[in-house]
Amino acid sequence: MPPNPLRGVQAFVFDVFGTVVDWRSSVAAELGRHAKDGVDGNWEAFAEEWRQGYYRLTGQVARGGPGPSNVDEMHRQILDSMLQTPRWAHLAPLWDGVERAELVMAWHRTKGWPDTTAGLYALKKHAIIGTLSNGNVRLLVDMAKYADLPWDVIFSGELLGSYKPNPKMYLGALHHLSLEPHQCAMVAAHIYDLRAAASHGMKTVFVRRPREPDSPPDVRTKAEGGEVDVVAGSFTEVADILAEARKEEADKQVWQ
Amino acid sequence: MPPNPLRGVQAFVFDVFGTVVDWRSSVAAELGRHAKDGVDGNWEAFAEEWRQGYYRLTGQVARGGPGPSNVDEMHRQILDSMLQTPRWAHLAPLWDGVERAELVMAWHRTKGWPDTTAGLYALKKHAIIGTLSNGNVRLLVDMAKYADLPWDVIFSGELLGSYKPNPKMYLGALHHLSLEPHQCAMVAAHIYDLRAAASHGMKTVFVRRPREPDSPPDVRTKAEGGEVDVVAGSFTEVADILAEARKEEADKQVWQ
Repeated sequence: MPPNPLRGVQAFVFDVFGTVVDWRSSVAAELGRHAKDGVDGNWEAFAEEWRQGYYRLTGQVARGGPGPSNVDEMHRQILDSMLQTPRWAHLAPLWDGVERAELVMAWHRTKGWPDTTAGLYALKKHAIIGTLSNGNVRLLVDMAKYADLPWDVIFSGELLGSYKPNPKMYLGALHHLSLEPHQCAMVAAHIYDLRAAASHGMKTVFVRRPREPDSPPDVRTKAEGGEVDVVAGSFTEVADILAEARKEEADKQVWQ
Repeated sequence: MPPNPLRGVQAFVFDVFGTVVDWRSSVAAELGRHAKDGVDGNWEAFAEEWRQGYYRLTGQVARGGPGPSNVDEMHRQILDSMLQTPRWAHLAPLWDGVERAELVMAWHRTKGWPDTTAGLYALKKHAIIGTLSNGNVRLLVDMAKYADLPWDVIFSGELLGSYKPNPKMYLGALHHLSLEPHQCAMVAAHIYDLRAAASHGMKTVFVRRPREPDSPPDVRTKAEGGEVDVVAGSFTEVADILAEARKEEADKQVWQ
């Protein structure tokens, strides 16, 4: 049997949107609640386009280009642009400035996946758990309170001075946690994020989340000839693998 | 009756050493455990001098002078210097490099005051709670795990780019929490820290902690003609005042 890949891992840092929380259904539901009677929109498609705008803009900033450093501002800017396009212009009169500001807050109130909270509490018994998200601090704190995410530490794009996949993000987390790269695992449902983490020597945990973009169905572990350290269907499964690693470490110490 | 001073406060940021944890007895006990048999030191005095060195160096950096940005490095530097002075030179042969590195970790394993954990959990029900400490992130995370401090967010000197009382610290916390100054309260046992917070418009909560330096016995509230918003003997007392403020806010909304 290959050695447990989580041996020696002291901290897990998590991508949040999509990996930890179900942004699509949460944001779509909030959009539906803000629509006036009789306006029936494809709210999931709206949420997806909003999310795509976020990917595009954070990616631009990560490569050194212009864009807001605060994700609340970014979400507002994208919302305003979308409401000027032919596809969504019919919704623009529904929402004034106050309501648009409230809609931006929908991203602060997103549900965790069914395994999220239990998995995080189980992991927290054996390791440091933190966010490594492009979101701003207040957004991540509000999400944690709303969805019961017991983070030990919040690392955000604005705090570390860029967005993923810029190296500042991964190297900043390692520096502030005083860890060697192999002592820290990146957990994400997106392969671009794990590839960036791996390029700095971090361990990688791929969690399968249905319908996430950049989340190929055929990701495999290194033991299977693939590129990541762990593939799991849930956070509780990751916690089980970590608990097993801790047992192996304890046994090894007894026999040394 | 004057209005409750914590009305409208959405977040509390805490000084940690001395305010949240009892560094003196914790570090002194660890020093005693590392001493060889028959070496009887005044470990509290040693811990105090170590702490004074930290105050001096963080103060220097806060004013724009040179010094380590990481408190672990700073603690090691001060320890090495102390062991070269006449007062403590007799201890130098006791501790090699490995043991000195372990002693630095004593600051990661400090006990909370008796009211600390219960008070923080009570406050967390009604507000965001975070550190605003000169300590580095890993130090603050380890302390939180050791002493059960359920922070929502960790703000540290290294993360915000200076040390208290540099304005970057207070303004950085407000910025990342997306709060107006009056919506955020600084909690500390040290008056210099509260004065700096107040100069930026933050609310101030003075908690009496026995034997802390810069902790005058006669600090009074504004309602009593003094300079801070709240004076309390414990975190649980602060939580009671906050719970009362939340009730007043709810009543006010009903009557408006």
